[in-house]
Amino acid sequence: MKKRPTIEMVAQQAGVSRQTVSNAANAPHRLRPETLRKVLGTIDELGYRPSHAARSLRTRATQVIGCRLLPGNYGGTGGVLDRLLHALCDAAWAKGYGVLTFSAANDDEEIAVFDDLLRRNAVDGLVLTHTHHGDVRPAWLMDQSAHFVAFGRPWGVERPAHSWVDVDGSAGTAEAVRHLAELGHTRIGFLGLPEGNGVGDDRYQGWQRAVDALALPSKGLIARAEDGVMSGKALAEQLITSPAPPTALVCVIDAMAVGAVRAIEEHAMESGRDLAVIGFDDSPVASLLRPGLSSVRQPIEDVAHKLIEVLLAEIAGTQRRPSRALLAPWVVVRESSGLPRARELRRSSPHGGAADSTLPDLNRKEQGK
Amino acid sequence: MKKRPTIEMVAQQAGVSRQTVSNAANAPHRLRPETLRKVLGTIDELGYRPSHAARSLRTRATQVIGCRLLPGNYGGTGGVLDRLLHALCDAAWAKGYGVLTFSAANDDEEIAVFDDLLRRNAVDGLVLTHTHHGDVRPAWLMDQSAHFVAFGRPWGVERPAHSWVDVDGSAGTAEAVRHLAELGHTRIGFLGLPEGNGVGDDRYQGWQRAVDALALPSKGLIARAEDGVMSGKALAEQLITSPAPPTALVCVIDAMAVGAVRAIEEHAMESGRDLAVIGFDDSPVASLLRPGLSSVRQPIEDVAHKLIEVLLAEIAGTQRRPSRALLAPWVVVRESSGLPRARELRRSSPHGGAADSTLPDLNRKEQGK
Repeated sequence: MKKRPTIEMVAQQAGVSRQTVSNAANAPHRLRPETLRKVLGTIDELGYRPSHAARSLRTRATQVIGCRLLPGNYGGTGGVLDRLLHALCDAAWAKGYGVLTFSAANDDEEIAVFDDLLRRNAVDGLVLTHTHHGDVRPAWLMDQSAHFVAFGRPWGVERPAHSWVDVDGSAGTAEAVRHLAELGHTRIGFLGLPEGNGVGDDRYQGWQRAVDALALPSKGLIARAEDGVMSGKALAEQLITSPAPPTALVCVIDAMAVGAVRAIEEHAMESGRDLAVIGFDDSPVASLLRPGLSSVRQPIEDVAHKLIEVLLAEIAGTQRRPSRALLAPWVVVRESSGLPRARELRRSSPHGGAADSTLPDLNRKEQGK
Repeated sequence: MKKRPTIEMVAQQAGVSRQTVSNAANAPHRLRPETLRKVLGTIDELGYRPSHAARSLRTRATQVIGCRLLPGNYGGTGGVLDRLLHALCDAAWAKGYGVLTFSAANDDEEIAVFDDLLRRNAVDGLVLTHTHHGDVRPAWLMDQSAHFVAFGRPWGVERPAHSWVDVDGSAGTAEAVRHLAELGHTRIGFLGLPEGNGVGDDRYQGWQRAVDALALPSKGLIARAEDGVMSGKALAEQLITSPAPPTALVCVIDAMAVGAVRAIEEHAMESGRDLAVIGFDDSPVASLLRPGLSSVRQPIEDVAHKLIEVLLAEIAGTQRRPSRALLAPWVVVRESSGLPRARELRRSSPHGGAADSTLPDLNRKEQGK
């Protein structure tokens, strides 16, 4: 019986690589015309049928969802997207799906990866993260009829034609303002990102609206810079040393809040006692700092479940129109915005046994473990 | 021309699901005998050939590597495995591979996932993390002739028959001890995990060997408990209040070191000034704490590159014998083990301009940004 021609046989006879044969069938534009002609000629000659395997693959669900892995902001206090990946992985796995992660330096590279994954039928659908103004990825994906859902609103797009899930950042900063106002603060500042960043503008607007609604001042209480601990420190320093300093700061992101806390400490003050600070994202460092950093927490597990629910509906074809979901965050209150801390412990003498008797119950329990 | 029988046609004629037909071909043990008989009869009757598609898939590289995503230790100070995932993703992508991440509650569940991924030819190879005593996964994978490499030594296995890459934890704690000894410390304690944990025992041994080599005391200077901030605090408290307290602490993991720092603060002392502390893993919190936490840093990027290099050699069949690689970590020195900090800044008055003139150059530069 004659052996069924394989891609290797075509490659060998045409004197090209396996990949070139594959490209001739799936991405002919990648080949030079004479190479394409030669490979197609050999394919005809041997009777190789690349389309069959490709077609059967195309109709076969991979049970895999693709998602770009963005660099962790470990120098700062990021980690929201890492938290998302864990949650996404759990939510996907509960439905029998794995999550294929990949690296890409920018949107163009990400699109090249999408192209490759879709051509290879390596994924059933995609989760887009880090949406931003002028984002070219959604249009490309829609053009390919790819199944996808975005974590993040399509900033600047009036009637987005695709599904997305996001967290209501402005609701978060507004809640932070109301929480501080309830504690008696009347001069509540905002450390933000430069204008033009979708997420940053959204969080800023929540602060502005809440401050206006409470008839509190905002003039001279806004400072903006790129994200980072050092820039947060510089901005806080700027507001602290201004003629009419704030008594509380809402920060667009935890890294800025960490910087603000450092500026406060350098003025021999303490966050929470002398100046309240609230961050955003409730990154791991927020609970580990002393005083603990209050922070707006995103419901990442709910986001992940919603992303998977919407994406699987897209894949199944039961999603008739684009789905939009805006989930509410909440303020995790710690010492930096007024939660009392056991300050008397600091006054106990070194090596003395006295500290034990003033330890809170939680600590005592842990100690007895 | 007669239409080639499809899996759907078999499923319809046999009155079963598509999955059941697939199982009859690939996992017959999952079906009840009468169902299996009925499906196999229909497969024969229609002349369906499931093996062809399966075979062509089996020889087709997926360009995907599988790796279980372990829950991030966000309550504590974990993140090493998240750092590894990012590095693995970068290293894999540089070779044209994606990383398929999945959740699993325990080793049994992980093996069930492996089974599914291998049956579906969804991955070309696997990276195993979190190796431990009595680990049943390597034997299962070797039994399946699956390509894999472990991050972590096969603890307790004398002659491991598979490839692994690990970080030399004992070299890290030994370096920490020598660094502290150079600073003049003679009573260097160790906060460790309960015995029987491969990683924990390895790090402990490095401390013990280095202390012995320097003829320093170790009696009464070891305390052990499960990982965690609160347990680290309790252990440090125990050593601090002992008759002959240590002047420095090497901690098996950063979470414990963070707890130790809290215990030190509660005694109105400061880490670095009154008691030196060194953690392990250089998690994000280490650089964000004030005083900064010295910590042993794992060369995770090198680990990832080595894992991919070895795994791709396994997949290509060029790896003749199991590969073993033990990479060296190093101590990142911060204030908690003696790096001087600008303490005078704390004494400047609130809202005063004096702080600016005493700011270190680094801060001034950042402020002027």
